[in-house]
Amino acid sequence: MTQPKVHLLLTGDEIMSGDIIDSNSAMIADHFSTLGLRPSKKVTVGDCLEDLIAEMQSQSQQADILLVNGGLGPTEDDKTAEALAQVISSPLIEHPTAIAQIEAWCKKLNYPMNDANKKQGILPQAVSILENTNGSAPGFYCEHNNCLMLFTPGVPSELDAMLSHSILPLLTQRFNNIEPHSTKRLQVFGIGESSLQLKLRKHIPDWPCDIDLGFRAAYPQVEVKLTAHSKQAEAKIDGLTQQIKQILNGHVIGEGNLQLPEHLVQLLAEKQQTITTVESCTGGLIASKITSVAGSSAVFGAGFVTYSNEMKTAMVGVSETTLEKHGAVSKEVVIEMAQGALEKSGSDWAIAVSGIAGPSGGSDDKPVGTVWVAWGNRSEIKTTKLFFPFSRQRFQEYVASAGLDLIRRELLGIDEKPNYFPKT
Amino acid sequence: MTQPKVHLLLTGDEIMSGDIIDSNSAMIADHFSTLGLRPSKKVTVGDCLEDLIAEMQSQSQQADILLVNGGLGPTEDDKTAEALAQVISSPLIEHPTAIAQIEAWCKKLNYPMNDANKKQGILPQAVSILENTNGSAPGFYCEHNNCLMLFTPGVPSELDAMLSHSILPLLTQRFNNIEPHSTKRLQVFGIGESSLQLKLRKHIPDWPCDIDLGFRAAYPQVEVKLTAHSKQAEAKIDGLTQQIKQILNGHVIGEGNLQLPEHLVQLLAEKQQTITTVESCTGGLIASKITSVAGSSAVFGAGFVTYSNEMKTAMVGVSETTLEKHGAVSKEVVIEMAQGALEKSGSDWAIAVSGIAGPSGGSDDKPVGTVWVAWGNRSEIKTTKLFFPFSRQRFQEYVASAGLDLIRRELLGIDEKPNYFPKT
Repeated sequence: MTQPKVHLLLTGDEIMSGDIIDSNSAMIADHFSTLGLRPSKKVTVGDCLEDLIAEMQSQSQQADILLVNGGLGPTEDDKTAEALAQVISSPLIEHPTAIAQIEAWCKKLNYPMNDANKKQGILPQAVSILENTNGSAPGFYCEHNNCLMLFTPGVPSELDAMLSHSILPLLTQRFNNIEPHSTKRLQVFGIGESSLQLKLRKHIPDWPCDIDLGFRAAYPQVEVKLTAHSKQAEAKIDGLTQQIKQILNGHVIGEGNLQLPEHLVQLLAEKQQTITTVESCTGGLIASKITSVAGSSAVFGAGFVTYSNEMKTAMVGVSETTLEKHGAVSKEVVIEMAQGALEKSGSDWAIAVSGIAGPSGGSDDKPVGTVWVAWGNRSEIKTTKLFFPFSRQRFQEYVASAGLDLIRRELLGIDEKPNYFPKT
Repeated sequence: MTQPKVHLLLTGDEIMSGDIIDSNSAMIADHFSTLGLRPSKKVTVGDCLEDLIAEMQSQSQQADILLVNGGLGPTEDDKTAEALAQVISSPLIEHPTAIAQIEAWCKKLNYPMNDANKKQGILPQAVSILENTNGSAPGFYCEHNNCLMLFTPGVPSELDAMLSHSILPLLTQRFNNIEPHSTKRLQVFGIGESSLQLKLRKHIPDWPCDIDLGFRAAYPQVEVKLTAHSKQAEAKIDGLTQQIKQILNGHVIGEGNLQLPEHLVQLLAEKQQTITTVESCTGGLIASKITSVAGSSAVFGAGFVTYSNEMKTAMVGVSETTLEKHGAVSKEVVIEMAQGALEKSGSDWAIAVSGIAGPSGGSDDKPVGTVWVAWGNRSEIKTTKLFFPFSRQRFQEYVASAGLDLIRRELLGIDEKPNYFPKT
């Protein structure tokens, strides 16, 4: 049985103009996905009556479910009800259920119902009402062109509550072919998106067609997402996830939405070990990524931002001779930075980075984008030279993530060499 | 003369599924607004060939300009070129201009062109190429159904550059009825969005109707945007901008897209002075914001991330007695942190922060969200206690920005008190 086709129609000048970014459709997609429903098309128009009428007609002809979001408010530019009245040829009336709901809302908040509130209850006679537990504008629905049309408020908290409390139950009741879908995600780092795909295609040539395989560049991580489209497919999804983990091996950070800093803090906490950072070109970004994780104080006590050469000497004891002889962006300097930070902080592990973030400061020998990384503990410090010829901010992002990933691989004993230079 | 009708077609399963929130269309609307163009409809579909074909056909019939975004990458789910080939009946070839551009990009980054890269140059024969200065996938354009169809990459930095460098000039050249609209922006911090609106409405009650006044919460800054819709309106826009600057006074950071860290680095560079940071709850975020600015090495040499109490003592000499007596989140401790950092780094200015980022660690006396900030120089250290009862990441963002803003106000001698707790 095929699944109902879902379209979204979003309305509002402020979304069209880009003054606000639409986050409602992500919320809608998220709620619908719990029923295995997937919006396949989304149309956004401004507050123009003719456009609204045209799209309600056209989308209701194409879809089984059309969710309309926005334009239910009390002001003049809220034209959704007026447009629908024309589309379904049903007169606008003071809808008794809607008015009762608005009255109850005003009473709850202890203010008298005014004309602006009342306007939100003037709806096409033919609609049924959806309760708004978080605001004054009722939602509503009707059938047209064999399509279930749902009308929802633009305020995110009101929409969210209406989806959970009214719309999902209504859909489950209306469509007996709705079946929740299973999804698995893997977070990957240290292999480019295109190499990753080539590798999976080579190792799993007979990918089952009832499981979607998706890739998303969630800079700097790459997300691999598996979606099962049937009960039989669902049974295969765990096995495939395990297979992908084996193929990608050390490049897999973890499942779900696991981010590098979070994972590193978990790993260190399990081992009851601590880490320190000593940063030149990233200027505190590595430390701030670690401390963005709740509970990081168990594994992180000190970070050194040694941006100038003098401060590399003063704060973590890099020798002036080493700086003069090899330059600040060198293997020798990052090793001394790491050693100094280990000593000053008493931490178990250290990450040190020194590089040229640009846009100026490069040379033929050490172009903008060059960075030396050192990582390790009191027994062994490893180093590598990396090259990220990107914008300053993107360079800093990649260097910080590479530093975190190199320690992650060290902690887990991963031998596989990462390739941080994204080819795409 | 009527303006060309602009539609957007956004593609990608990850946008349809809500896995990523579309911020590109706001960017597109923003660029187009400088030409006085305003997209009137936006359609989003997943990576489904038939849907892409249907929408390219249908939207090109409705619009004068259709901007298609996404689906130009190297992977299998990138189907834009294939769809267009069918729509305009032009065979897919290794497009020489595109391939040359990809080759040049690979050469610049010093890696060999692989098949995945090459796929991005397999395009319908009939298209013309748009240069991508920030990535490997070329953009392209063609005419169909009397509509100019523009094809752009989904990566925001690549799209941004392509809009400025190639698309806006192309549009100005193609459409002689485009009249650039004047736009002015002001970046504001230290006053909530709704207070800001009330203040402007009170002081400029007779706002001219041919100038749009828009507000955008660009966390943590607020952007005020003025758009003139005619030549006469354009003449008024500078005067109004000045008026708003006077009304908002010290809360205005600057014009255009000026961000706090950039402005602070400029101010310090002009004065030839330096700054140091000593951070507990923000864990390096203030330092990383400063060093994200190109040229920050002239004003910043050292930052201290003193996350644990021991390190507050070891790194910047906070006395153990002060820590015991007042606790780490106290006026006394942030003063000693600032003094210690000034001494250790030899900088002219210091910002020190210590607070409770949460989610745990709060008490009745010092709930999660409490933070003490100290800022100043060798002659005077000022302090304030702030409260940001937000999520951990948002708390850290606001504390970092407040720290930067307090030094900005100090450097500029602004007396006006900021209100960092956004009411909306």
